[in-house]
Formats: sequence, C-alpha cells, structure tokens
Amino acid sequence: MHLSEITHPNQLHGLSIPQLEEIARQIREKHLQTVATSGGHLGPGLGVVELTLALYQTLDLDRDKVTWDVGHQAYPHKLITGRYEQFHTLRQKDGVAGYLKRCESSFDHFGAGHASTSISAALGMALARDLKGEDYKTVAVIGDGALTGGMALEAINHAGHMPDTNLMVVLNDNEMSISPNVGAIPRYLNKMRLSPPMQFLTDNLEEQFKHLPFLGESLSPELERVKEGMKRLAVSKVGAVFEELGFTYMGPVDGHNLKELIEIFREGHKQKGPVLVHVATTKGKGYAIAEKDQVGYHAQNPFDLATGKAKPSNKPKPPAYAKVFAHTLTKMAEDDSRIVAITAAMATGTGLDKFQAKLPKQYVDVGIAEQHAVTLAAGLACEGMRPVVAIYSTFLQRAFDQIVHDVCIQNLPVFFCLDRAGIVGADGPTHQGMYDIAYLRCIPNMAIAAPKDEAELQQLLATGIGYTDGPIAVRYPRGSGQGVPLLDEGWEALPVGKGELLRSGDDLLLVGYGTMVYPALQVAEILSEHGVEATVINARFVKPLDTELILPLAERIGKVVTLEEGCLMGGFGSAVLEALAEAGVTVQVDRVGVPDILVDHATPDESKASLGLTSPQIAERILKRFSFDRQAIAAAGI
Amino acid sequence: MHLSEITHPNQLHGLSIPQLEEIARQIREKHLQTVATSGGHLGPGLGVVELTLALYQTLDLDRDKVTWDVGHQAYPHKLITGRYEQFHTLRQKDGVAGYLKRCESSFDHFGAGHASTSISAALGMALARDLKGEDYKTVAVIGDGALTGGMALEAINHAGHMPDTNLMVVLNDNEMSISPNVGAIPRYLNKMRLSPPMQFLTDNLEEQFKHLPFLGESLSPELERVKEGMKRLAVSKVGAVFEELGFTYMGPVDGHNLKELIEIFREGHKQKGPVLVHVATTKGKGYAIAEKDQVGYHAQNPFDLATGKAKPSNKPKPPAYAKVFAHTLTKMAEDDSRIVAITAAMATGTGLDKFQAKLPKQYVDVGIAEQHAVTLAAGLACEGMRPVVAIYSTFLQRAFDQIVHDVCIQNLPVFFCLDRAGIVGADGPTHQGMYDIAYLRCIPNMAIAAPKDEAELQQLLATGIGYTDGPIAVRYPRGSGQGVPLLDEGWEALPVGKGELLRSGDDLLLVGYGTMVYPALQVAEILSEHGVEATVINARFVKPLDTELILPLAERIGKVVTLEEGCLMGGFGSAVLEALAEAGVTVQVDRVGVPDILVDHATPDESKASLGLTSPQIAERILKRFSFDRQAIAAAGI
Repeated sequence: MHLSEITHPNQLHGLSIPQLEEIARQIREKHLQTVATSGGHLGPGLGVVELTLALYQTLDLDRDKVTWDVGHQAYPHKLITGRYEQFHTLRQKDGVAGYLKRCESSFDHFGAGHASTSISAALGMALARDLKGEDYKTVAVIGDGALTGGMALEAINHAGHMPDTNLMVVLNDNEMSISPNVGAIPRYLNKMRLSPPMQFLTDNLEEQFKHLPFLGESLSPELERVKEGMKRLAVSKVGAVFEELGFTYMGPVDGHNLKELIEIFREGHKQKGPVLVHVATTKGKGYAIAEKDQVGYHAQNPFDLATGKAKPSNKPKPPAYAKVFAHTLTKMAEDDSRIVAITAAMATGTGLDKFQAKLPKQYVDVGIAEQHAVTLAAGLACEGMRPVVAIYSTFLQRAFDQIVHDVCIQNLPVFFCLDRAGIVGADGPTHQGMYDIAYLRCIPNMAIAAPKDEAELQQLLATGIGYTDGPIAVRYPRGSGQGVPLLDEGWEALPVGKGELLRSGDDLLLVGYGTMVYPALQVAEILSEHGVEATVINARFVKPLDTELILPLAERIGKVVTLEEGCLMGGFGSAVLEALAEAGVTVQVDRVGVPDILVDHATPDESKASLGLTSPQIAERILKRFSFDRQAIAAAGI
Repeated sequence: MHLSEITHPNQLHGLSIPQLEEIARQIREKHLQTVATSGGHLGPGLGVVELTLALYQTLDLDRDKVTWDVGHQAYPHKLITGRYEQFHTLRQKDGVAGYLKRCESSFDHFGAGHASTSISAALGMALARDLKGEDYKTVAVIGDGALTGGMALEAINHAGHMPDTNLMVVLNDNEMSISPNVGAIPRYLNKMRLSPPMQFLTDNLEEQFKHLPFLGESLSPELERVKEGMKRLAVSKVGAVFEELGFTYMGPVDGHNLKELIEIFREGHKQKGPVLVHVATTKGKGYAIAEKDQVGYHAQNPFDLATGKAKPSNKPKPPAYAKVFAHTLTKMAEDDSRIVAITAAMATGTGLDKFQAKLPKQYVDVGIAEQHAVTLAAGLACEGMRPVVAIYSTFLQRAFDQIVHDVCIQNLPVFFCLDRAGIVGADGPTHQGMYDIAYLRCIPNMAIAAPKDEAELQQLLATGIGYTDGPIAVRYPRGSGQGVPLLDEGWEALPVGKGELLRSGDDLLLVGYGTMVYPALQVAEILSEHGVEATVINARFVKPLDTELILPLAERIGKVVTLEEGCLMGGFGSAVLEALAEAGVTVQVDRVGVPDILVDHATPDESKASLGLTSPQIAERILKRFSFDRQAIAAAGI
C-alpha cells in the first residue's frame, strides 16, 4: 500500500511491520520534500513517524481521541488522515495548516499551537466519555519540553488522582536518546513490564530478601518501605515522579522501533487509570542533517534537501526586529550588569541565543514556563535588577495574571519585550499577536510602546531599560525591519508617553501605532494625490497616550483615523476614542486594524490584504468613509 | 517580652523556646480577637504561628528575603513586623491589609493574594543575589494547596535544575497531619537527616548489602540502582518527587514544635542548592473550633469567639449571587446530565459545594489549577458536554491563554461563570474583578453578559447552558443580590446580544451594564428631580453589543453615559465608543466606571464612594459634565 492510498488511519490496522516501515519511509520522504519546498516544522514530525503509526495501529480513530500537544509534531498524522494530496500546500494561504485544527479534519480532535495543553484536553474528553458511559480511548501525546509547562503539570496532578479514569499520556521524549550505556537496563525492565501479568523487580527482590538468613519470613516495617520503594528503582527519573503522582509508568521505549512501540501501546491500553508511556525519539530522525542539528532543524524556511542549507532569498532583507532587539540588548547588558534577559524556551526565536553566548550569567531560560518567567522577573526587579522578559505576544498570554498580580499591582520595573506582535503569517490563528494591546492596556501602572522601525526599537529598548517607575512593554513584529540605519551605541531614551508629529495637513489626522506608522505615511501620500492633506502622528505609546499631541490636532482637524496591527476590540484605536470622549472632543474616528475575527495562516502580506490593511486599501476606505473628493477617486480609478 | 514590644522580627533572635511559646500564645490571642471582630482569614494564620517564629529566629530580616505564598497566612508575620498596634484595623479602609503588600512594610518582601507565586519570586531574588555577589537567604513559604498551581511547579522545575542557587522552600502542609501510625518513621528519618554530616539510610543498607554472602564487595549495576533508590525510600510521597526534581528534601517536621522547627531551618540554611522543608501544620491550630472545621474557618465574617458562630448581621440580606448561581445550576444539572460544573479549589466560594453534594458525578474540583480547568472544559465541550467553569474574575486571569487558545480559537461552547466581578471589598487590589470585560472582550467568538440582578442571573444561566454556538461568559458580583423574586424553575433563556429598554427620556441616554443598571435607574430618578429625563438601557451583553437598541437612541438623544463596575480602559464604555465610532455617530459620551488605578481594600460601599460610583455622585457628575440645568443644581444643593 502506498501512503497516498491511506485516507483513513484505520487502514493501518493489520499492516505488518515491514509494511508500516515502508509507510514510515514514504511519510519521511513526503515530509522532507514538502518542508524543504515550503518551509515549516521539520524535526518534530520526523521524530514521531513510528510513534504515530504504532499508536494508530492500536486505536480506532473513528471512536478514540488523540490530542497532539503543539500540532507541529502532527505532520505524519496529517499525512495518514486524508491530507496527503493537499500536503504540498502546507502553511500556505487556504492550504493545509501547520498545526492541527478541528475545522480541518474530523481526525484533528483538538487543535494546538501553544504547548502543554494536551493532557488537560484529553482528560476532559476522558471525563466526558465516562459520564456518557462510553468506552473509547483518550490519548495525549506530549513532548518532554511541553511537560515543563505548568498547565501540563496541573493536568498530571489531576489525572494522577483519578485512578478510575482511563487516560494514556504518551511522552514524546526527544531529549533522552537511549544511549548504549544506560539503555540496557531500562529496556530490560521495560520488557519485564510488558509481559502481563505485570512482573516487576520488586517481587523478585522481595523473594530474595525473604530468604536472606537474617531477615526471615516477615519483613520489618523498614524493609516494607524498601520493598515499596523498589518500584521506583526500576524507572528512570521522569518515571519515578510519574509513579509518585499516580500514573502507571511504562518505558522508556525506542521511539523508532515499531514492534516495541505497538507492544507497549497495546499493553498501555489494558491499564486501568492514568498511564504514561515514555517514548524516546530522535528529533529529525531519518534526515541526518536534522538529527545532527536538532535545534536548527526544528522549523525552517525552504531549504536544499541535499545540503540542508536554506535557499537564498530573492533579495537581501533588512535585519529582523528580533535580531536588532538581541544585538542592542546585548550591547546594553555588557555595560549594565543589572540587565537579566529571560526567555521561555525561545532562545533562537527571540534572538537571545546571541545574548546567552556573550553574557551567559545574565541570561535565564526557564523552559516553557511563561508564568514562572514573569514572576521570576518580578523577584529580580525587587532586588534592583533590570529583568527583560522576552516572550512572543501570543505566548505572553500565558502569564497574564502574573503581569497583573505580581508585576503591575506591585508596580515593579519589569521590562516586557513582545516579539511577534501583530500578524505572524504561516503559523496562523494560535500564534497571531493580536491581543497584547488590549490585554496589557487595561492594567494599571503598565506603559506600552511600539516602535515604527528598528531604529526606534533601539531607542525604546534604551527607554525601557532606563525606566524604573514601573513595568513597561514594547511590542514589535515578526520579520524584517524597515531598513533604516541603526546605531551601534549611544541610543537615546525617548520620553515615556510622547509621540511624534511626522507630517502636517489640514484635512485628516492619521494616528499610527508601531508597524502602522509607515503605512500611515504611505496612506497620506496616496491621499495627497487626491488632494487630501493629512497630518500623521507616530503615537509610539498607547499608554500613556500622548493626549497633548493628539487631542488638539483631532479637535482642529475633525477627522481622525487610527491605524494599528492588532485587535480593534479594546486596542489602540479604542484608547484614542476613550481619550477623545474624556476630553469631550466629538469627531469622526475611523479605526483601522484587525477586526473581531481569527486570522488564518497565510503570508503576512496576504493576511494584510485580506484584512484591508494595505496602504492603498486604507486610502480608499478613508476616501469613502469621509466622502473626500469623489471625483478624484473616479479619476484615479481606485 | 510582650508581643506588643516586638516591632522588628530580629528581636526574636536569642529568645528561648518558652519565651517564643509565650509570643506564639499572644499572637494567637491577638489573631483570634481581631478576626472575630473584623472578619478575615483565620485558619491559615493560626497554623503558621510557630513556623513563622522559628523561621524568623533563623533569619536576619534586614537582609534575608521571605516570600509568603498567598499573604493571608502571614498575619503572624504582620504581628511581629511592626503592625501589632494597627492590627485591629485589619482589612478595613486605610487599615492593615489582609494580604502582604510591599508598600505596607519593608518586611513584606513580596505581595500576594493569588496562590502559587512565591517560589518564582524567591528564585528571582536568589538569582539577583548571586548576580550581585551578595549572600543573603531567600525563602518561599508555600501551602500544599498552592503547590498544585502550575506556576509553582514550573518554579520547582526551574529551581531544581540550579544546584548552585541557594533557595529554601518551606512547604506549609496542613493536609498531612502527622498521625501516629505513620508519624514515627518520618520523624525518625528526619532526625537522621538533621545531624550533620548528613547520615542516611542508604549508607547503612549499603553496608548491609556489601556483607551479604552472595553479593560480596562490589555492587552489581542493578544494586547500584537499588542503593541510589534508597534515598527515596526514606522520604514521603511528596518528598520523593522533590528529590527527583533536584531538591534536598527535609522533613516532615511537626509544624507546632518550635524546637524541631528551628533545628530543621538551621540545617536547611546550611544546604547548598534548593532545599525543601516539609512542615506539617494544623490549620486553625490553637482554636479548637477551627481545628475541627478547617474548611469552615479558613476565612469568615465576624464571629463569637466562645461559640465560633457568626455574629448575626444587622438585617436579613437577599441571597448572594453565588448562592443563586449554585442553586440554579444544580437544578438545571439535575435535568441535564451534560452539565459539568468545574471549580478550581473554590467549592464553597463559588457555592458549588451545594452542587457537589447533590450531583457529585457532574462536579470537578481541579485544585488551584485554573489553566487546566479551562482546557479540561474545552475537552469536555469537544465531546458534547456542557462544561460550566466557575472561577472568580480575578483568578480567571490565570487562564487567559487557555480561554484564547483552547476555547475561543476553537469556538468551543464552554460556559464561564465569573463570580466576584467588579469591586470585591476587603480583599483589596489582588482580588478586584476589574479586568474581565477588557480581557475577554478582545477575543473573537466570545459572548459576554452580566445580569442586572439575581433573577436575571438565573435567566442568563439558562441562556448560557442553552447557547452552543461558542463560548459565553457571565460576570456577577460578590455579595447579595437586589432582593428581587426568584424562580425555582422554568427560567427563560434571553436572546444573546440583546439588551432591554428600562426607562424613556429625551435628555440623556444611560447605558448600564450588570451591577450598574439599578444605579443607572437611581441616577435617572435623581436627574428627573432636576428636570433631566433620561432613557435607561440595560445592555446585558457587552459582546455582542446591542447596537440596534443603543445606536439609534444615542444618535437621537445626543448625550450618552455608560455605567460599569470594571476598568474603564478597554471596558464596557469603550465597547460603546467603538460601536458609535463605527456607525459614525458623533455624540458626547461620558464613561462611568473604575479609572486606571488600583482599588485598595475597604468595604465595597466605601470603594464605590471613593471612586465616585454612588448614584448621587454619578448624577452630580452628569449634571456638571453636560451642563444640565445649573440653577436646579444650586437649588437642590448637591
């Protein structure tokens, strides 16, 4: 059977190991070709090919439920659940999504782009099953990295106390490769555990103990405890913790040995209560270049399969905001030992790997633990350090309460640097950085800025480091800057709460925020061609908002357009409306931004076009909304 | 020395055990008297009197840092850090706060009203200390309940991997009372661990093993593992997990034995790296009535010390919103087995203890684990259940990302019931339910309602249960309802996104939301006395907002006032501004609500008065803002 013929995962049932191995080979081939062409997550999917096939051979996917933690490990799942033919459209507009989505396939039982959610969801499904009196299986597949996320630990804590609720957690452990020196015993022990009825080291040792001359038949209370503890000896570090928390622990098993995997999953399904199957996988398995550089090949742009090298992009691009952030912060931290950069498992994404290389002592990676990262920063701030929390806009949602409760209520000077704020492109709805303005703006004491370009980011970094009156956040987008000249030192701090006037005109006031400032200038140029002269403000801060600058201009000009790359509900434009209302200025305001919908995966340019956020679209909208110069519109043929 | 003479915790240094016991007695006396008179948290503080005294005898509070998880266990701390004289003002306006606050005392090193934050903060302080090359101690005191919170587990995961960072975590375990049958061995083992150099069961058993005839001198790899594992045998369930995670585990120790406590803390401070001291305490210790009913005496209103019974309140009050919620939901769930009520360790607070008593199978308490609660609900919703997540507005902040990522992006029908939305009173800033409108409103697919009274809450519960198009939230306040008649069955679902017109008048449009609808009617009455006739709308939904009802009236009347009990930044009034701007309706809008400040502890009425939220204050403000009938104002003498 060829992979292309598999449209339902139950077709795997009954396939022999060699047949499955052939399917595995084809999955890897397709996976590699596709990601090499269109970019995407490479290592995670390649690591779970056998895990997926083995698991699905033991499940009935019409009834059983599988939740994949962070859907990017689920490309093999996609290839055997009816998406082979469309797989070449991966992460492209209207194509196959890079993560699982309930609306994309009935086999995507739970979607996820953020980590650590799968056990909670699977346990919810298990509870529902038991309440309904049904008997399907629920399985969560979670990576060892995602396991450090607090919510996964909360879920384990809960599941471990439900001995009557059947739930399988598959730990996709790609950190712990089974190296020869420590692999023999676990494999041996595992084999013992696999033969029903479960035999275990304990029993043997108990026998041995009993026959020792000085012990006799009855065990002393102390040796009863020894016996009890024996169970823990047989399991690895992770395993012991799970057993303590009420799980039956099985493994570790070689995650690329189909036979062993199928065996262990079969046994696991027979267990009562929560069971954890520990699967040792190799990220990037089957593609030597990726196996060798597991960090580098987690996700990437299109690349040459033979060399593993990224395909050269069409034209040289300005440096990415993340790069400017990391470079500038590193420079500052070299001169200021109070600066501590904090990441939550996103060293490369945030650019902080460069910071770490130069200043390892001032660098902290807490793992996938955004909540802890923020309160850790609060603790650092209490003691006079300058913590810089670098977390993507979408992931900082995890730490909302910590921002409110530990940072803002105590008014501690923590500096938040939010990368990937705004439209993120191919990662889709789970990763869009849409809500940060709204969710940060409502909290007292918080200052929030956004640079119009990468040079202003440098200035805002200097501003943030210098600002000790309370918490401050800077949001900046994914991708390249505007290509403006950068300074290598001597960055000037900007006044907090002050914007800048970029252009003057009497017909319209354009108030841009962050990435929408340059578009505002372009819109002004287009409007000018229609005889409409606009004033353009770079607001720079949504909080405190520069009402001194904005309000008099709004009142005088009488027509206002706000521009932001974020949700309109409660966003930047909303802040301008509030300021106007408070001052009793009643003028027409049009708010340009992301409406109250989820923005799907596509290139950022495609997303912006769909949302009407390109400069010509905005200009057209303004001309219509304010009934400017209708004849000019007709003449220009927009 | 009398407790009243202790104004600095270092005064405890050198006191003998009997002297400390006398101080402990005085702390309990003062604690009991104060809470009996003014209400507050009783059990937690009584349980940690000796823990506090013993810990502080081993610390120098001018240098060392202590973070108390959830400050309500820190009343004894307050009594020995200069707040004895003011302690009778506990939880009263301008009095001593019910939680720790950095601004209240230099000995309050980190404030907290939410659980599970202390280890993160303490670790941050420890990192700061090491970076600065200083050598003070950092200690986190955390309850066993708070330990189930994900962020505490994230912090343990991080701290456990930092063997060179000294950090003490004191586990205040009031669940695990040292009962005689299991207490002897732990105490024995603990004693062993306390004598430096650390001797341990391992060594003895290793010797024994070595001298067994069949083993000889060299241990087999398998018995090496046995030896390794021995360490775990000596520690209790929790201990084993901590040891696995890199902590040195010490305990359990009797939390009311000052001598043992001081000894173990002294030993603990000598450890390198992270150390966990497991202290077994009794909640309510020293007040028999509270020891007997640990749930009932966690926190309470003023009560009679002799009987433990609550003092009768001055007048009978209408039932609390929480009670109406729980009663109504229970009734509904009796007829609908799909309904599952979920709480995060707040069974009594949310009223769900009543639900549990009747329908234990349809009830889930996940512990302090709001993130898990929400995604568990998402999993239940996937399988056709009707999960009802009952979490206070302030605690739901913990699950913001799960609401966005797991519920709203997937548009799953989870029903959120937010108790304590708005002003909460004596608990102060950490507990105010101010931000939910803003943080929920920005998320696509979310519907958000608030009832004007407890009867409408019943209807909105019916609405939420019946609504399966996506997620829906209902926010309601702490405390009593309006006293309107309630239905015992047959609640009618209200149309989603529809408000109601309550009063008509041509001069002004008052748009009230939730608890501010009745005040809006009162304001209208006051204004009427001044010849100003107002239309009053109960908006009922902030999302979807009833623009069909609101916009034409706003346009016709021309003057709008919005009223809400929540933050103005991004809140309900902001939603009205957005709708008006979108429709091009330019009218004067005054938004009444909570400005961008933290609201301190006080009675709700006092808070409302300080914020200008009483009906007369609002009426006065409106008369001024809109220049209504200045002479009438003068005549009325407002």
